[in-house]
Amino acid sequence: LVPFRKDKHQHLRYNPLRDSWILVSAHRMKRPWAGQVEKPPEEQIPRYDPRNPLCPGNTRANGEVNPDYESTFVFDNDFPALQPDAPDPGADQHPLFQSKAARGVCKVMCFHPWSDVTLPLMKKEEVVKVIEKWVELVEEIGITYPWVQIFENKGAVMGCSNPHPHCQVWASNFLPNEPALSDRCQRKYYEKHGEPLLLEYAKQEAEKKERVVVESSDWLAVVPYWATWPYQMLLLPRRHVLRLNDLTTEEREGLADIMKRLLTKYDNLFEVSFPYSMGWHGAPTGPHLKENNSHWQLHAHYYPPLLRSATVKKFMVGYEMLAQEQRDLTPEQVMYWIRVSGHCFNFAVYL
Amino acid sequence: LVPFRKDKHQHLRYNPLRDSWILVSAHRMKRPWAGQVEKPPEEQIPRYDPRNPLCPGNTRANGEVNPDYESTFVFDNDFPALQPDAPDPGADQHPLFQSKAARGVCKVMCFHPWSDVTLPLMKKEEVVKVIEKWVELVEEIGITYPWVQIFENKGAVMGCSNPHPHCQVWASNFLPNEPALSDRCQRKYYEKHGEPLLLEYAKQEAEKKERVVVESSDWLAVVPYWATWPYQMLLLPRRHVLRLNDLTTEEREGLADIMKRLLTKYDNLFEVSFPYSMGWHGAPTGPHLKENNSHWQLHAHYYPPLLRSATVKKFMVGYEMLAQEQRDLTPEQVMYWIRVSGHCFNFAVYL
Ligand SMILES: O=P(O)(O)O[C@H]1O[C@H](CO)[C@@H](O)[C@H](O)[C@H]1O
Ligand SMILES: O=P(O)(O)O[C@H]1O[C@H](CO)[C@@H](O)[C@H](O)[C@H]1O
Repeated sequence: LVPFRKDKHQHLRYNPLRDSWILVSAHRMKRPWAGQVEKPPEEQIPRYDPRNPLCPGNTRANGEVNPDYESTFVFDNDFPALQPDAPDPGADQHPLFQSKAARGVCKVMCFHPWSDVTLPLMKKEEVVKVIEKWVELVEEIGITYPWVQIFENKGAVMGCSNPHPHCQVWASNFLPNEPALSDRCQRKYYEKHGEPLLLEYAKQEAEKKERVVVESSDWLAVVPYWATWPYQMLLLPRRHVLRLNDLTTEEREGLADIMKRLLTKYDNLFEVSFPYSMGWHGAPTGPHLKENNSHWQLHAHYYPPLLRSATVKKFMVGYEMLAQEQRDLTPEQVMYWIRVSGHCFNFAVYL
Repeated sequence: LVPFRKDKHQHLRYNPLRDSWILVSAHRMKRPWAGQVEKPPEEQIPRYDPRNPLCPGNTRANGEVNPDYESTFVFDNDFPALQPDAPDPGADQHPLFQSKAARGVCKVMCFHPWSDVTLPLMKKEEVVKVIEKWVELVEEIGITYPWVQIFENKGAVMGCSNPHPHCQVWASNFLPNEPALSDRCQRKYYEKHGEPLLLEYAKQEAEKKERVVVESSDWLAVVPYWATWPYQMLLLPRRHVLRLNDLTTEEREGLADIMKRLLTKYDNLFEVSFPYSMGWHGAPTGPHLKENNSHWQLHAHYYPPLLRSATVKKFMVGYEMLAQEQRDLTPEQVMYWIRVSGHCFNFAVYL
């Protein structure tokens, strides 16, 4: 038998945050692609568009006028999936037809007054302002709601319908599936090993250096060992931090810096404004603020869809939906390509 | 407080096959869509294309020549994600860096010699031939492998890179995440209630008639109460059946008929060859053939991506990836639209 090589031989990898497995088949990148090709993102986005509801001074769908904001700007989503006052569906009749009340708030947060910038193109001080606003929102909304999901859909291919740089914040009266699962996994690991899962993971990755893309004294960005999306990234502090609002001033500045470095590399990889969905996971809030959440470690997930180029994405369909997620590249190969991308191209310059 | 109405008020619904919750926010369909628009599928697909590796008589990537097949045709995938002989990665060192051997086979199955047909456009006898080949494959490959995943990616928007009507069969030496989860859920229900989850579900749905799209004496197709994708469908026999190869001759014919009826409605809904990923889940095979699998019920999942029209799909991004799946229409509304679609339009005619 030939000896096992992870860049050559298919194998399964375990995702300890989701208690599930990924099929890694590195050899499959060789197959030709004759399938769907995506439109690359618009190159020329006007700095100000009088019809864009996210620009300063413009009128939104509900008739409200945006202020002439100069930094970040937060408002309630005009078409919220979660509202604070939905009535309760009442007691469940049958175990196969169970429903529950869902209440919450949905907010939109503009990162910058200009439509033609993205986080990697913004000044570091401007990114710090975004982080400070995130901290504020987690702090404020987290008083009542058990979960505050901050997320950014970037690029039309990720369902983003407005090119203006922005993210969303959806808070709910329930712990959604994904954080609930992550909570269970981190708790179990903590109970068994006596230390937070992701803290130990960060230590290991910092030593191995096989998957680290960018790092600083406070932060680490790695292609996780169990990455599902081709260029997936896990961004986390090195210190034990439960929530965004526990970060020190230095750590917030360090975060702005590492985000800019990471996202500049992303943009350079295929020489395109790199699409992704990203979001923050931290210890639950609201009623959970009084509990011991030492098993938690703050982190951000980046899920980018591109696979081969600016126009060919990975399709999570068929086998992935019905059986198990599968990837065509190893996280180690990917780490290398993202790391060097900053040197090869010049699409985005780190400012 | 206003009384709860499921078509008006957001709520959570429980998916008993995945032990997770879906956020249903019916009111959100009102929001305007300025996001990505998909290319509608090609209208003119040639019946025979000399460059298409799936057509009869053509040469494939590896130099093999397809026979002049007249019904179905099965061959080994030229770029398999699973191969029978991958070496074992060896014992795991650390709980956060676990890997396992993955072995299996990947096959491609053409439904018909013509590229310009789809299952709903094929004759009933031809669809019966497809079902018979599925049965054969589950029987054959299921002798050794614990899981045989039959799935069809239809349409470029679902990552399908070849318009010729075909599905794939990936078998593995492991139980993938999704069937493993479904197995646990069905077992738990069976232990608690003494009957198979999906058998009881089918009975309830057949009585309620709120979500049934097509039915016959042997089969039922419903938009499940916990549907995630807008026009998701669950297709299942009314009798307790563990696997495809347990179906009687009549049930196979009935399946061909109900599949054609369902898929014709799908095509008529937005007057387009309806894209989806679909696949079969039945009791595990291989070593599991000797176990008691009474908790299982055979079923097919249909996951179609379209939301508003032939060109606007639902994006499962951001909140969905990081927190929880969310839908903008209730399954009950959707049932109605699919049911009537066969009457309103004439894009596909039920033959
Ligand atoms: O094998 P295909 O059709 O080339 O590929 C398609 O189906 C596979 C199985 O669902 C996916 O892994 C691929 O991402 C998708 O593009
Ligand atoms: O709220 P938006 O940006 O209009 O919508 C986008 O993000 C939402 C949250 O991830 C998703 O539910 C939508 O499918 C997507 O199109």
